[in-house]
Amino acid sequence: MSRPGLILKLSCSDQPGIVAKIASYVASHRGNLVAFEQFSDQLGGKFFARLEIQTQEFNVDVQDFIDGFGTLGRSLQANWHFRRLPYRMKTAVLVTKTDHCLNEILWRAELDELPIEITSIIGNRNSCRHIAEHANIPFHQIDMDGENRSLGFEQIHQLIIQQNVELIVLARFMQILPNGFCSAFAGRIINIHHSFLPAFIGANPYAQAYQRGVKLIGATCHYVTSELDAGPIIEQEVDRVHHFHTPSDLVRIGRHCERIALAKGIRFHVHDRTIIDGHRAIVFPD
Amino acid sequence: MSRPGLILKLSCSDQPGIVAKIASYVASHRGNLVAFEQFSDQLGGKFFARLEIQTQEFNVDVQDFIDGFGTLGRSLQANWHFRRLPYRMKTAVLVTKTDHCLNEILWRAELDELPIEITSIIGNRNSCRHIAEHANIPFHQIDMDGENRSLGFEQIHQLIIQQNVELIVLARFMQILPNGFCSAFAGRIINIHHSFLPAFIGANPYAQAYQRGVKLIGATCHYVTSELDAGPIIEQEVDRVHHFHTPSDLVRIGRHCERIALAKGIRFHVHDRTIIDGHRAIVFPD
Amino acid sequence: MSRPGLILKLSCSDQPGIVAKIASYVASHRGNLVAFEQFSDQLGGKFFARLEIQTQEFNVDVQDFIDGFGTLGRSLQANWHFRRLPYRMKTAVLVTKTDHCLNEILWRAELDELPIEITSIIGNRNSCRHIAEHANIPFHQIDMDGENRSLGFEQIHQLIIQQNVELIVLARFMQILPNGFCSAFAGRIINIHHSFLPAFIGANPYAQAYQRGVKLIGATCHYVTSELDAGPIIEQEVDRVHHFHTPSDLVRIGRHCERIALAKGIRFHVHDRTIIDGHRAIVFPD
Amino acid sequence: MSRPGLILKLSCSDQPGIVAKIASYVASHRGNLVAFEQFSDQLGGKFFARLEIQTQEFNVDVQDFIDGFGTLGRSLQANWHFRRLPYRMKTAVLVTKTDHCLNEILWRAELDELPIEITSIIGNRNSCRHIAEHANIPFHQIDMDGENRSLGFEQIHQLIIQQNVELIVLARFMQILPNGFCSAFAGRIINIHHSFLPAFIGANPYAQAYQRGVKLIGATCHYVTSELDAGPIIEQEVDRVHHFHTPSDLVRIGRHCERIALAKGIRFHVHDRTIIDGHRAIVFPD
Repeated sequence: MSRPGLILKLSCSDQPGIVAKIASYVASHRGNLVAFEQFSDQLGGKFFARLEIQTQEFNVDVQDFIDGFGTLGRSLQANWHFRRLPYRMKTAVLVTKTDHCLNEILWRAELDELPIEITSIIGNRNSCRHIAEHANIPFHQIDMDGENRSLGFEQIHQLIIQQNVELIVLARFMQILPNGFCSAFAGRIINIHHSFLPAFIGANPYAQAYQRGVKLIGATCHYVTSELDAGPIIEQEVDRVHHFHTPSDLVRIGRHCERIALAKGIRFHVHDRTIIDGHRAIVFPD
Repeated sequence: MSRPGLILKLSCSDQPGIVAKIASYVASHRGNLVAFEQFSDQLGGKFFARLEIQTQEFNVDVQDFIDGFGTLGRSLQANWHFRRLPYRMKTAVLVTKTDHCLNEILWRAELDELPIEITSIIGNRNSCRHIAEHANIPFHQIDMDGENRSLGFEQIHQLIIQQNVELIVLARFMQILPNGFCSAFAGRIINIHHSFLPAFIGANPYAQAYQRGVKLIGATCHYVTSELDAGPIIEQEVDRVHHFHTPSDLVRIGRHCERIALAKGIRFHVHDRTIIDGHRAIVFPD
Repeated sequence: MSRPGLILKLSCSDQPGIVAKIASYVASHRGNLVAFEQFSDQLGGKFFARLEIQTQEFNVDVQDFIDGFGTLGRSLQANWHFRRLPYRMKTAVLVTKTDHCLNEILWRAELDELPIEITSIIGNRNSCRHIAEHANIPFHQIDMDGENRSLGFEQIHQLIIQQNVELIVLARFMQILPNGFCSAFAGRIINIHHSFLPAFIGANPYAQAYQRGVKLIGATCHYVTSELDAGPIIEQEVDRVHHFHTPSDLVRIGRHCERIALAKGIRFHVHDRTIIDGHRAIVFPD
Repeated sequence: MSRPGLILKLSCSDQPGIVAKIASYVASHRGNLVAFEQFSDQLGGKFFARLEIQTQEFNVDVQDFIDGFGTLGRSLQANWHFRRLPYRMKTAVLVTKTDHCLNEILWRAELDELPIEITSIIGNRNSCRHIAEHANIPFHQIDMDGENRSLGFEQIHQLIIQQNVELIVLARFMQILPNGFCSAFAGRIINIHHSFLPAFIGANPYAQAYQRGVKLIGATCHYVTSELDAGPIIEQEVDRVHHFHTPSDLVRIGRHCERIALAKGIRFHVHDRTIIDGHRAIVFPD
């Protein structure tokens, strides 16, 4: 979206007239609604919406429009969020050794498929340093092993604050985040992990999947909460596998699912297409 | 949707304030918008919307609500259509020999996946009569070969009028429709046909697909216009094939794509999720 | 496969020369190998193969060919199985209330996509009786509730023996099979069950999947062993879902995955394309 | 495949005993067949096979084994080809402006998903030079516009010969190859192009696809012959699209299909999993 505009995300209890009120507010200031996606969750009694508004014809300052919405938003007892366009989300990418997810993100960012600005790549190993350097992005190697864990995450925390990072992507980052870190950046940390049908508990799920002869493997992109791998799902991908695929083939195919699901998940997030609602995410796909 | 309600489909030139006006009209009569899907086609400058409105709390008669919308609709120079819920669309199914699409429709109708009432099954052959009889649906065998073609289609035309049929499904009906018939029921005839990458011209595309070693075959469900197989696309399905699939395997796999694509296409149509716009259909998927 | 022939399935420890020995045996009797699929599992050190052999030019009786293979088979310490073609596998279908899987099987059998002869449909409820009757297949309603369970399964057991049933399909059969029953028909019982990413424990997985906002749901077709839902997987299907799909939409979409996965799984089994190896099935797809 | 070995590809008229003869030859020299895929095309009367043979236990030199096969191969009137493992195929990548396919190839090569050695990247524009330089691969900018076309392709031809290039990948190379070039490297040039259902003739197929409201777009990876875009298909990919996807969204999604299909197609080729047969390719997938 090249023209100046706004994205509004909103959730509240469902009630008659919400769409009329919001759309009338936009129209009364000569905003042009170019997209209005909504979901009325009749089981949970909640309303979710995402609007894209062109602002060229506004009869008020954009900031006044945003401020003025407060009266309506509060009367609906809503949570809402405005984003000014064009926008490029400041993003930190955390990695360990493998680079396939990092590469996918860098490549899509360069092609402008992902409107992000990667402010730093942070690794608990040095493996991805050369990739960061080639992309002219600062690389921070931070030790998080054993007793360095707390200190390490404190350093990351500070870096994120200093750089005004809005999104933290765990691109095959092989460390469990401290609860405090998860809470501090709730709704702003995206992870990718492998997915199997059925689920395999314990070490080396790929070997287990091979032994069990699964026909599909995949990956799940989700928000991180303090419950390990139980955060709201943003996107999932699967691919078909056969008995002749060795565990290392499964790793290769799973890797492919991971980078696709993660790239799509980030895209939905940075385009403000996701609204977190308890254990799930409403995702208005594009 | 079991509760009483309305579906409104609307298209018009895009202009600021449409959503506000429509939603305000609904809210002013205490309608509850449970779904509002819209698409603002910035390339074509058109606006398309589909609304689901609960009417229990209406402060007017439903018919008055519908009639009263005319003032707004005309001011927007819109095309619009209201449907009262619950609804079951009267449907005629046209067949020749093969029955896989017919069976899929019958089965989904019985499960209430398709809210249709099949008023008659019409065949230019007798092959599907036993299926119709078992389902307790009148079967009409109408000869359309050679010089009987005009008369045959006239008979179908009359039957459709008599039975107040709203939707005509060509479920592997192997006759080319006369132009007059297409025009008379424009936007109300749905066809399914096989699809190949690349397209194969001429007889026996399955044999050609085999000779060419295609890796994907599929089916396209579309509205029928007088341009053969060029009507607005509603749904498409593909499946993966291999060199070892014989032409008859391709037929089997294509058959599967056909029944899936056709069933989905009908579902979108009878739920008023499609809006025809020139050569294409806007489809709000469910 | 309309021409007379044989299918040979074989598994043994991997060792050099197996293919040469088998193919030479076939060639020495003027058999024509029209398909030879093999899988050499280098991790497990096992060899699996499936051969289709045309027998018109045989210089021996087919039975002598089969008997004569014993010398080679024993020298390889193999498990093997011959099937004479054309063949139609005697099949019993067990159902409870829902009929979508049953209907899919009946329809594909009629179209000859599944070379089976359904000798009886057995239900612990009467819901599917009319379907069986319309298809002219004997329906047996057998009570399996509470204390009738043992007796019920004994009756099924006897029926299967009497009718020389080779394959037992659980087409949404909502009873847990006794261990003895599973053992008695090991490798001959095929089940279908829903699959979720992540897996949901406990009642109503569809409601849980909705609450969790999953983006994919599916179905797994597998052989039944005494470990509940842990038998060798034959086929899996998934479909994409969205936040707006209610639990009943998920049931509908899951139902679709179930019938596809079950139909494919049965097809692989009756064409002797599966070889069970511990907890997994080798599946040579078609 | 890390252990030393051979891949044999072979095609000939179908005839009884082929598998026995080949497998016996392998076994008689103590080769261990770790994979034997074959396809007996009963419609065309042809036989195709691919074997992977471990050679550690050979009782002859590998070269003697290869030479010795000639007697059998000639008696079968076969075409055959041996490849010694491990192997890394010398590859030239031709590009114009867009780099998504080039990047995908580089990345997969680095991860060892593609066992290739890229000897040079050749562009008729300079756009991809920096990518080549970063990957330490020689970049050759060769002008092919207008009257420079013949000379340009001659230069490429010479470079390919000098570098012993075995595979030429057209990674969104926007020039039509001269017929002589196609013939000189028949079966060794792989192209990727977009695919649509239906096919769109003429300029800007993405705009046409948008106007027509297609629901699927894709890409086809194929061998290049002098018939434009009609060479044997190796792999195809599709992705689902919606009415709200603009032509530039379609380009983005199509781009994704292109890099996946091209990477898979190259993988099949360099693992000798393809056998060209007239207008089609037999592909033994992995």
